[in-house]
Amino acid sequence: MHFDVLVEVRLRPGIADPQGATIERALPALGFHEVTGVSVGKAIRFRVEASDEAEAQHRVDELCRRFLANPVIEDVETTLAVTSGADAAATR
Amino acid sequence: MHFDVLVEVRLRPGIADPQGATIERALPALGFHEVTGVSVGKAIRFRVEASDEAEAQHRVDELCRRFLANPVIEDVETTLAVTSGADAAATR
Repeated sequence: MHFDVLVEVRLRPGIADPQGATIERALPALGFHEVTGVSVGKAIRFRVEASDEAEAQHRVDELCRRFLANPVIEDVETTLAVTSGADAAATR
Repeated sequence: MHFDVLVEVRLRPGIADPQGATIERALPALGFHEVTGVSVGKAIRFRVEASDEAEAQHRVDELCRRFLANPVIEDVETTLAVTSGADAAATR
């Protein structure tokens, strides 16, 4: 089975986020007064092959822990979805 | 009402993604042969105040169009959720 995976890597609370702070500071002057709490992270997408969803989740968690995120400063949220038939045939 | 917003900004198909390509090239040697199609984008989170969800979605769309993404090379996917409850989540 193939799974489409989205890994969102974001800075942990309390870690300085200059990108987010810069965007937030600029928005009022640009007409967006109603936007607060801006933070900028990474959205990593990929496809993983596994025999079932539990195995896929396990491998994705290991990948995040070892290579995609720095647990000292970053939190990770993963989303798995079974790749639909048409997409599964596509290659990249 | 307050809405928690997640904006995922990713490169459009066909646009070179050196970050994703580098990760994908490295993974087999690191023991992750089952991962393909890696792409790296941005995950921007913020809170927006609006009178209803339609207005919030409209403002978020405008913000993305004007400042958060470059439509020539990037696609955007937004997710809104009412801050006080997850039931009203809507993906677009």
